Amino acid sequence: MQYVRIKEAIAEQIDAGSLLPRQKLPPERQLAESFNTTRVTLREALSLLEAEGQIYREDRRGWFISPPPLRYNPSQAVDFVTAARAQNRQPDMTIINAKAMLADKVATRLLALAPFADVYRIERLLHLEQRPVAYVTSYVPPQLCPNLLRFDLAQSMSLVLREHFALEYHSISYRVTTSALFGDVALALRATAGTPALVIERKHYDHKGNLLNAETELWRHDAICLASEAILTPVSA
Amino acid sequence: MQYVRIKEAIAEQIDAGSLLPRQKLPPERQLAESFNTTRVTLREALSLLEAEGQIYREDRRGWFISPPPLRYNPSQAVDFVTAARAQNRQPDMTIINAKAMLADKVATRLLALAPFADVYRIERLLHLEQRPVAYVTSYVPPQLCPNLLRFDLAQSMSLVLREHFALEYHSISYRVTTSALFGDVALALRATAGTPALVIERKHYDHKGNLLNAETELWRHDAICLASEAILTPVSA
Repeated sequence: MQYVRIKEAIAEQIDAGSLLPRQKLPPERQLAESFNTTRVTLREALSLLEAEGQIYREDRRGWFISPPPLRYNPSQAVDFVTAARAQNRQPDMTIINAKAMLADKVATRLLALAPFADVYRIERLLHLEQRPVAYVTSYVPPQLCPNLLRFDLAQSMSLVLREHFALEYHSISYRVTTSALFGDVALALRATAGTPALVIERKHYDHKGNLLNAETELWRHDAICLASEAILTPVSA
Repeated sequence: MQYVRIKEAIAEQIDAGSLLPRQKLPPERQLAESFNTTRVTLREALSLLEAEGQIYREDRRGWFISPPPLRYNPSQAVDFVTAARAQNRQPDMTIINAKAMLADKVATRLLALAPFADVYRIERLLHLEQRPVAYVTSYVPPQLCPNLLRFDLAQSMSLVLREHFALEYHSISYRVTTSALFGDVALALRATAGTPALVIERKHYDHKGNLLNAETELWRHDAICLASEAILTPVSA
């Protein structure tokens, strides 16, 4: 398989450090010439590298070498900004939209709300080194956090809740699935439609078991890696 | 967006229970006619449903309604067969290949072996209701489990190690990333090339901290969902 050989050749250059994170690859035409192959075969090689998270495509801008993925441990109480800084990354958060609304289908399901209950929905974009990497939608029931929208929401929700409402995350329940990016979310993440995504759905509770909020994070698949250690607990099937 | 409306219409039929898990969808041509749309628009709708894990494609066989994903909690000591049965599924495991070999690049990295060290590599396929859902590669250093290949390996490695070598998993370290299926693995999972996959990399240790094995699981993305609850622990960044 010629494309596997080309993929290996590029991967070796990445491993050897001669291609650096965030560096732009030469145009496909030029790469195809230098490997003495066709555009079709070259694209197969690039798709393999993309699937492995070694390179990523930005819509209309070309191919780039992936920085290492952010390591995220879902059972630790670390917010995005703190986690990123601890890994020597430059995090940033921007607000796409924040509003009070009547609970939609997703909010109703995530927060177990009555239909048409009041809820805050905050949509934000997470960046690493100026690159958009995740689209986060937070749903917050207003009972425990009235006037939430008055505060600076361009920071982790855990910090907002702690600082302004003295609410602290105590436990979490989470689900991780895979999806693909389409429409506005793909656009915001500068991804071509169909780019794989890791979906993290989280619910945070305080020490009394009150549900404080629910968040859905859609990550560009190359930008994140879940990692954890655990002492195994016996089955409670 | 017409394709979003078509997607919603099909999703509602799934939610309402009029399309059952594992049921085959009518051919694309017929679906396009019944929604009074083009094949191109219909395919966009189907791609969205596939990305959400609601339907799946089997190579050359058409589109099917996805069964619910298997819930997997990486911090519990539950093997695949036990977990599947507890969720009223019909699990099965088949061996693709099992051999003693010199450590390749992957084995060397996962088990921190010296190059060319001896290692067992066992490749197996996990099925749910006869459908292949995951491709598992296990690497086992032979020191603690000599003659491993003599035993029945069409069962969870934890059971083999417990029964024949009195070795028990005590702790785990795992990484979860996203990739796509290609080549032999895609073929074994009856997936079209490029189908998204969830990759779970696990290392199991005994109570003394000895590394017992390392496994890489490539899951069809619609077939699995990681889910867990945790009391949040403070940062140790």
